[in-house]
Amino acid sequence: MTVYNFSAGPAALPLTVKQQIEAELYDWNGTGCSVMEVSHRSQEFKDMADENEALARELLNISDEYAVMLIPGGARLQYSMLPINISSKQGEAIYAINGHWGKQALKEAGRFTQVSSTAKVNDEVYAGIPSYDDNELNAKADYFHYTSNETLEGVQWHKLPQTNGIPLCCDMTSDLLTREFDVNDYSMIYASAQKNMGIAGITFVIMKRDMIGQSTNLIPTMTDYKTYADTRSFYNTPPTFPWYVMLLMLRWVKAQGGVSTIQDINQAKSSQLYAFVDQSDFYLNKVDPNCRSEVNVPFWLHDESLNQKFLSESADAGLKALKGHMAVGGMRASIYNAISLAGIDALVDFMQEFERTNG
Amino acid sequence: MTVYNFSAGPAALPLTVKQQIEAELYDWNGTGCSVMEVSHRSQEFKDMADENEALARELLNISDEYAVMLIPGGARLQYSMLPINISSKQGEAIYAINGHWGKQALKEAGRFTQVSSTAKVNDEVYAGIPSYDDNELNAKADYFHYTSNETLEGVQWHKLPQTNGIPLCCDMTSDLLTREFDVNDYSMIYASAQKNMGIAGITFVIMKRDMIGQSTNLIPTMTDYKTYADTRSFYNTPPTFPWYVMLLMLRWVKAQGGVSTIQDINQAKSSQLYAFVDQSDFYLNKVDPNCRSEVNVPFWLHDESLNQKFLSESADAGLKALKGHMAVGGMRASIYNAISLAGIDALVDFMQEFERTNG
Repeated sequence: MTVYNFSAGPAALPLTVKQQIEAELYDWNGTGCSVMEVSHRSQEFKDMADENEALARELLNISDEYAVMLIPGGARLQYSMLPINISSKQGEAIYAINGHWGKQALKEAGRFTQVSSTAKVNDEVYAGIPSYDDNELNAKADYFHYTSNETLEGVQWHKLPQTNGIPLCCDMTSDLLTREFDVNDYSMIYASAQKNMGIAGITFVIMKRDMIGQSTNLIPTMTDYKTYADTRSFYNTPPTFPWYVMLLMLRWVKAQGGVSTIQDINQAKSSQLYAFVDQSDFYLNKVDPNCRSEVNVPFWLHDESLNQKFLSESADAGLKALKGHMAVGGMRASIYNAISLAGIDALVDFMQEFERTNG
Repeated sequence: MTVYNFSAGPAALPLTVKQQIEAELYDWNGTGCSVMEVSHRSQEFKDMADENEALARELLNISDEYAVMLIPGGARLQYSMLPINISSKQGEAIYAINGHWGKQALKEAGRFTQVSSTAKVNDEVYAGIPSYDDNELNAKADYFHYTSNETLEGVQWHKLPQTNGIPLCCDMTSDLLTREFDVNDYSMIYASAQKNMGIAGITFVIMKRDMIGQSTNLIPTMTDYKTYADTRSFYNTPPTFPWYVMLLMLRWVKAQGGVSTIQDINQAKSSQLYAFVDQSDFYLNKVDPNCRSEVNVPFWLHDESLNQKFLSESADAGLKALKGHMAVGGMRASIYNAISLAGIDALVDFMQEFERTNG
């Protein structure tokens, strides 16, 4: 049975990536060892890191004005690294909130700088992106932060936030590499790898070089961007295997035709799924169509008493990890890059049949 | 050709561990996915984490008085987490220095607390452990830190440091699980995984529960031990694959007969190698025999002009990564748990033959 894994992250890897891992498990690049066993100071590993950086810069059009870094600790660590490195107790940062993760980022930043937000922060389920008058933003704020895609709520920005000239920073954990955008609009972008760039354990950070190393805060060496930028992320032993899997993912994206092709596929995938949900009286998605996520599609059964049956039967049919986050309930199909159109077909077929027999 | 990988870390994995990774690469625990693709919130992953903690506690005799945590960022991050969490700007910490990594730990800690050291800190190559009068240590210091094994210099403590009652903290990155010791002698122990517990990306921390969450410092959530202790390291998406490999390594240690059997094997391995070096007029080890490392054996050729030839021919013979750290030069055989007695035989045979043809 073909299995489609709709996990929100850690998430599915393309089959060919797993096959490459398998092929090199006992002998990576002629070393006679797995890449997991090879020193990060070896020439082979340095060459791999060079290829990884070059490919990331090529696929995302990242100029040399930006440093690219690989940092452990997940996006969660960036929630504090960003304010500690870029702001101060006397500084200010603005957070645009459209869901759970943005709220978490705001909360952590508020411990290290003064924060304000574009939306009332409460426990409501977000169904859209915030509206605000950017002319009212304090132009002297250190940065403006937003979460380009909220995985719980399935709410995604499809336009660039206006910031009144404030440097723009973005948590792109769930949609980096899934669609085209212009890095030059940003001062800083971060994404942990386990959605579209590989496996958990490493976070990809793009940051304007002139922002790095400017802080007067006392920053632990391992949470200072300068440490990673100056050493090309080789200050200490990095998570070498997640780094290697990231390279395999970048090669895979390139082999697909690059980010623009990937974007076309992702739009086709999400359009098909939303169109099916919208025409149904059995399923429901509550998000404003102007900001629906192309990578996380939450949906609810009108009759929630069928939830357990739906989850159990879908899992038996090889459609895994469809349970929605406990904060929002219902179902969620995370359809990151590794989920093919065939995966969407299989899901829609199952949903149709489940509706027919239970509707 | 059998390859023996003497890398100082990331380091060799036992063959059976790689075989297990291979066997489960497409279907871990009946999920139909690789463990890399499975949510850390899934029951399967939580069960794995439970087994991992139980096995670590069993193999190392860790009582419930201690929390065990898995933290990203390597031992390097612990260099700052320890003083930030356990000391303060007004506090004091004492560092026993017997090599490179202890010096690095001292330097980082000195940014966050007042530090003193048992040895003059300079650029000399350490050939022994420091001697000091523990009655002269400030009994009110927040902690006493040492590095149980220094990987560059091959200098290992074979007795417990005396601390005048000061809580004892230890970087056991390179020798945890290689020999028996009593956890109860310590307040805190840490070890990054890539020597004897798996692959890079995760650090194992054992800490007395009553030390956790006591600080008045402003600590980023992701560098607060309380975050990991309270959530059993499930606060955010952890490095799931390194965690899984750690479990495979713990199972392997248990299958070998546990730490006491491993210790016997490691003593036999290092004794054989040191005995060969000591009887030779061609090779040399400069470390005080009372504190030679059982896991990192540095050695030098008297005729250093032969270094490149030695490295090239040993690599061709399947004996990989024997180059010493650039700070100390010469050669180094890192013979962690995954290196078998057969690996030592192969190395000694090669060294003997190289001496015969070049001596």
